[in-house]
Amino acid sequence: MRSLSLIASLSLASLLAAPAWSQSDLQHQAQQLFKPIPSTPPALPGNPATAQRVALGKMLYFDPRLSESHAISCNSCHMVGMGGVDLQETSLGHRWQHGGRNAPTVYNAVFDIAQFWDGRAKDLEQQAGGPLVNPVEMDTTEAHVVEQLRAIPGYVQAFAKAFPGGSDAITFENIRRAIALFEATLITPNAPFDRYLKGDAKALDASQREGLALFINKGCAACHAGINVGGAMYAPFGVVERPGAEILPPDDRGRFAVTKTASDAYVFRVPSLRNVALTPPYFHSGKVWDLRQAVAVMGSSQLGAQLTDAEIDSITAFLGSLSGDQPQVTLPILPPSVATTPRPKP
Amino acid sequence: MRSLSLIASLSLASLLAAPAWSQSDLQHQAQQLFKPIPSTPPALPGNPATAQRVALGKMLYFDPRLSESHAISCNSCHMVGMGGVDLQETSLGHRWQHGGRNAPTVYNAVFDIAQFWDGRAKDLEQQAGGPLVNPVEMDTTEAHVVEQLRAIPGYVQAFAKAFPGGSDAITFENIRRAIALFEATLITPNAPFDRYLKGDAKALDASQREGLALFINKGCAACHAGINVGGAMYAPFGVVERPGAEILPPDDRGRFAVTKTASDAYVFRVPSLRNVALTPPYFHSGKVWDLRQAVAVMGSSQLGAQLTDAEIDSITAFLGSLSGDQPQVTLPILPPSVATTPRPKP
Repeated sequence: MRSLSLIASLSLASLLAAPAWSQSDLQHQAQQLFKPIPSTPPALPGNPATAQRVALGKMLYFDPRLSESHAISCNSCHMVGMGGVDLQETSLGHRWQHGGRNAPTVYNAVFDIAQFWDGRAKDLEQQAGGPLVNPVEMDTTEAHVVEQLRAIPGYVQAFAKAFPGGSDAITFENIRRAIALFEATLITPNAPFDRYLKGDAKALDASQREGLALFINKGCAACHAGINVGGAMYAPFGVVERPGAEILPPDDRGRFAVTKTASDAYVFRVPSLRNVALTPPYFHSGKVWDLRQAVAVMGSSQLGAQLTDAEIDSITAFLGSLSGDQPQVTLPILPPSVATTPRPKP
Repeated sequence: MRSLSLIASLSLASLLAAPAWSQSDLQHQAQQLFKPIPSTPPALPGNPATAQRVALGKMLYFDPRLSESHAISCNSCHMVGMGGVDLQETSLGHRWQHGGRNAPTVYNAVFDIAQFWDGRAKDLEQQAGGPLVNPVEMDTTEAHVVEQLRAIPGYVQAFAKAFPGGSDAITFENIRRAIALFEATLITPNAPFDRYLKGDAKALDASQREGLALFINKGCAACHAGINVGGAMYAPFGVVERPGAEILPPDDRGRFAVTKTASDAYVFRVPSLRNVALTPPYFHSGKVWDLRQAVAVMGSSQLGAQLTDAEIDSITAFLGSLSGDQPQVTLPILPPSVATTPRPKP
């Protein structure tokens, strides 16, 4: 895992390197720090994809009957076609309760080091079960969701096809596995920045290239690097200067809740910046709606830098180059409920 | 418009005709009473379809930013891929409030004589605006939804393409028109019953044909006729015997609220039975989850007939033949919000 000491070393290096790069130096440097999104979904360790499993996972992802109320699906908060998010400060869940943190995008989440803002799930498969049983999200239980799906004949068939060989294909584990396999298909290749990384120097315009140089030189790329331009490590919110409570509510201490380690107070998984222009509001608190303001806050809190308006403009233009081809998803035809299917409890 | 007197005459006719029909008589009789769903969407009077308008309507249909909370879209209660309904007794709307009646399916709604259970909207275009401004559904205002969309640059472009020529393409009327055009595409042709009506006598199995004969002979088809096997007229719930308050809550007097005419108390638009096997629970109250029970209730309340278990089985099997090809819809890519876009008020 990349460590925070990298922040210091890279920031120092960038201070030394500053704006002397040629365009080809910049492109070369970017190719060292970042990687393009592939055009096909990555494999999930221990969870081999088949067409049947992905199709089943898509059904489950869109099916509100996985929630206690039958009114909330995975897609309610991670909307395919809307940046993989819900554009809410924090999501609305069971009985209109608010979630604790801003919903991260499902797009390219497969490339993140861990899931949730505090990294408490190691991968998509572990993550997928969380919101199902969270009382402020879908509010069901492992046992009930299994019972629910076993009472829908179309799911009995679909699970048997997806997980053949066993007598009992509908298990909570298989639900999580199928959903994870569908989510792994939600990747956004071919952003202008990806084309730039692959060698097309003109894929970024002058402002975006200037923003990229600033992004590296100012130190943003110390944390926001790799394939997801983030998502690969943890960092405290407020490395240099802790932002105010209106942006960093003091009662959410982030990863501390997972590790119980004092140094993890206010530490969060660094979010991916892929498609960031499509996913306001920003930060785990969802308190900042303007991407330019988010850039400014990051400058002051993480880097101790008061970015100028022109610098913010350029960096924001660069961030716009991270919007890739959005997934084209045909809605699944969900299997009908029958008279014996458990009913919603709204 | 077909009148209620038809119920009496057809019931009488059916009593006389009873089970003497040959299979070809039955098919011929069915062809007189019903019509197949066409394979392409019908035109909407005064609202010509263009590819741009249908695409815009699809975006609007799936966009939760049309609601005050930004959490509820048309699709929340009329789910594409789930029978065009939400499988709830009554829908969950703004701040988890319940709607007053069971959400009718959007599928084939274009063929209904009017919209809503009480027919208070004359067509899809009039209907589309209703849930937007209903305080228990999407809870916005005409002015706010227009303001909302005008502040999303992608919609400014999409409306200009869909409604060219004017300076002010984003109007509440155009929102309604575009949504209606998309909804008109949500039709379900090619059900076994449609193939039967088109001449394939084997498209229905023996049980379904028996159910069809009963459906005609017992008098169901007096109200449930035409292209939508219903949806073409109004009728009181309880023609012969009013069901109990658990199924027909006394405080919802149906079409009386629209016409203020005493004879319209407990009168509702006869629902389409297209895809009825996919759309529990049943009736405007959503109180009956079992299709067999719904058939039995209709027998006693509308026809004064105590159907036998075998008759209910056959009629239910026939109703299963009304499930057509479900619409295949690729989710639209919604235009992003920007810093100046009005924010949700959850």
